[in-house]
Amino acid sequence: MKIIVDAFGGDNAPLEVLKGAAEAVQKLDVEVVLTGNEKIIRETAEKNGISLDKISIIHTESVIDIHEEPTAVIKEKEDCSMAVGLKALAEGKGDAFVSAGSTGALVVGATFIAKRIKGVKRAALAPIMPTAKGHMILVDGGANVDCRPEMLVQFGIMGSCYMNKVMSVKSPKVGLVNVGSEDTKGRELELEAYRQFKNAPVSFYGNLEAREIPFGACEVVVSDGFTGNVLLKLYEGMGSFFSHTLKDMLMTSFGGKLAALMIMKKIKAFKKKMDYTEVGGAVLLGISKPVIKAHGSSNGRAFYNAVRQAKNCVEGKVVEEITTSLAALGGDKKSTANTNTNA
Amino acid sequence: MKIIVDAFGGDNAPLEVLKGAAEAVQKLDVEVVLTGNEKIIRETAEKNGISLDKISIIHTESVIDIHEEPTAVIKEKEDCSMAVGLKALAEGKGDAFVSAGSTGALVVGATFIAKRIKGVKRAALAPIMPTAKGHMILVDGGANVDCRPEMLVQFGIMGSCYMNKVMSVKSPKVGLVNVGSEDTKGRELELEAYRQFKNAPVSFYGNLEAREIPFGACEVVVSDGFTGNVLLKLYEGMGSFFSHTLKDMLMTSFGGKLAALMIMKKIKAFKKKMDYTEVGGAVLLGISKPVIKAHGSSNGRAFYNAVRQAKNCVEGKVVEEITTSLAALGGDKKSTANTNTNA
Repeated sequence: MKIIVDAFGGDNAPLEVLKGAAEAVQKLDVEVVLTGNEKIIRETAEKNGISLDKISIIHTESVIDIHEEPTAVIKEKEDCSMAVGLKALAEGKGDAFVSAGSTGALVVGATFIAKRIKGVKRAALAPIMPTAKGHMILVDGGANVDCRPEMLVQFGIMGSCYMNKVMSVKSPKVGLVNVGSEDTKGRELELEAYRQFKNAPVSFYGNLEAREIPFGACEVVVSDGFTGNVLLKLYEGMGSFFSHTLKDMLMTSFGGKLAALMIMKKIKAFKKKMDYTEVGGAVLLGISKPVIKAHGSSNGRAFYNAVRQAKNCVEGKVVEEITTSLAALGGDKKSTANTNTNA
Repeated sequence: MKIIVDAFGGDNAPLEVLKGAAEAVQKLDVEVVLTGNEKIIRETAEKNGISLDKISIIHTESVIDIHEEPTAVIKEKEDCSMAVGLKALAEGKGDAFVSAGSTGALVVGATFIAKRIKGVKRAALAPIMPTAKGHMILVDGGANVDCRPEMLVQFGIMGSCYMNKVMSVKSPKVGLVNVGSEDTKGRELELEAYRQFKNAPVSFYGNLEAREIPFGACEVVVSDGFTGNVLLKLYEGMGSFFSHTLKDMLMTSFGGKLAALMIMKKIKAFKKKMDYTEVGGAVLLGISKPVIKAHGSSNGRAFYNAVRQAKNCVEGKVVEEITTSLAALGGDKKSTANTNTNA
C-alpha cells in the first residue's frame, strides 16, 4: 500500500514529516510517497540520519501557506506540495493522502482534484476526539459553515461508516448537536435533519446536548461546520485549560510535587488519552479516496499515526462503505424523499 | 429594595428558595416578595425553622412546569408563580425578579409581561461563567436560536453594560464567537455583525476563537443563541468531566487520597471558582427591569446569590445604562445606518 504525504505541510515540515514517514514504513508495512522539494527532503534526511528506504519523492517547488486563499490550491499554487499530492492520489499513484497544511486548501483541493464520492453533497472535516468512554468523530468540524439538513444526514452516515470500519465500533450512536433533547428543539436545520435522521441507515441517538459529549454519549457527533468548529476549539481549549490547572495544582508547591508522584500513573494515562498525537488527524469524509488532515503542529509521532490512520481507512474500505450507505439513502436531490421511504 | 422571588421555580422549591430568601433579607438589606402557594410556603418555613421576617407572600395556586410550552406562561398558566411574579415586577411591587423555573417560559414571560427596554430587538439569556482570569458573560446563552447581526451587536452592548456596572470591569472586551480570527471568517451573520461592531460603543475585541474563551480572553462573549447554548453546555460538561477525572485520580487509591490532602487547598479554591452557586444565575438582558434566571438545581446558597445579583443589577442601574448605550447606537430598524455614522 502506498500513502502519499505532503512533506511540506504543517509547522514542523519537513523534518517531523520525514520522521513520521520513516517510522511508518518501518512499522506499518506501507510505502510512502512524499511530495515537496526533493533537494531539501534529501538534505534534511541525511542531516538527521533518517533513512529514505521505501520512501519515494515527487519533486515540487512551491508550498501553499495557511494564510493564502484556500482556492489558490487549484489556481496559482496548483504546483504546491499539497496540490501535487492530491493529483498523485487522483491518478492512483497512492491509496491515501496525508497533509498537515492549510485545512481550507485541503478541503478545496480534495474536493476539486481528488473529487467527492458520487452523491456526496459536501466533504466534511471530521476530527477524532477523546471522550470518557474512548473516542468520537465530529462531523462537520469546520469545512461547511452553512449546511442543509440532508448534508447533516450524510455527515451522520459517513461518520458512522468511519467509526464502524476504522474504530471497530458496532452500530455507533449518531447524535445531532442541539439545544435540547426534545424533537421540537433547534433551528429549522435541526428540526428537518431530525426528521430525516429517523429514516437514515444509522443508529440515531436523537438530539445531543453538548454537556453529554465529553462523557461519550455518542460515537458520532453531527453538526453544521460553524457549530462544530466552535465545539472542537472549545473542547481543545477546555482540555488545555484543565492541563494548566492540574499543573498549577501539582507543580507549584513541594506538597503538590509529592502529590504528583503519587498519582503520576493516572496523570500519564489521562494525558495519553487526551493526546491528539496518538489519535492521528482529522479525516476528510466524502472524498473518493482517504484524505487525512494532520494537526498543524504535528510532530513525528503524530505524522506516523496519521499515516496509520490513512492505512486503516484504506483497509477498512471506508470510501466503499460510504458509497454503499449513501446509495441506500439516495445521494441526489431526491434524498429527502428517498430517506422518508427508506424506513 | 424589594426583590421578587418565584418560590416554586426549580427542582428544590420551595425549601431551598426559602433558605436563600431568609439569608438574603438577613445579609443584604433587602426585602423579599415570594410568589406561590402561601399555605405551603408558611408550612415549609415553620417545619424548617425558617424566619419569614421581611419576607412577604403573594399567593398563587399554580406552577408552570419545565415541560410545558413556554407560551403557557402568558396563556393558560398566567396565574402561575412565575407569571404573577413578573406582573408584580411590571406593576412596581418590586425592583427585580428571580426565578429558577423554565428558562423558555421566563424569556417569554419577561418579554411580554415585564416588557423589553425600548429599542431592544430581543431579550438574551446571559449566564455568568468562570474563566482563568475571573468571569465572563455569554450573550446569548440560548434565548434566540436564530439571530440577525444587529441583535448580536445589541447583545455585546448589553453584556458590556452588565460587566461594567455589576462586575466592575472597566471597558470589558467584547468578542464575537467565530471560526477564525480574520474578519473574512464565519457566516453572513458574523461577517455583518463584525462590520457593525466596529462602530458600536463597546471595546470590540474582534472575532473570538472558542479555544481562547476558558482563558478569559474576553469578558463579554457574543454569539447567536444556538451556538451560545452549545457553548454553555459544553463548558458545563467539560467542567464536570474534569471534576470526575480529578476525583478518579485522587479518590480511587490510597496514594491518591494522600495526594488529595497535599493539594486540598488548591482543589477547594478551584472548585469554588467553578461553582455556579457562587456566581448567581443568568441575567435576562434587555428587559425593562432586572430578571435573574437561577439554575434549575439551585440550593439555598445559589438563591441567596441570585438575589444578591438582582440587587447588584438594581444598584448598578444596568437597565438605565443599557437604555442609554442603545440610544447612542439607535435601537430601531435604522440601527445599522446609525451605527455606521456613530463611529
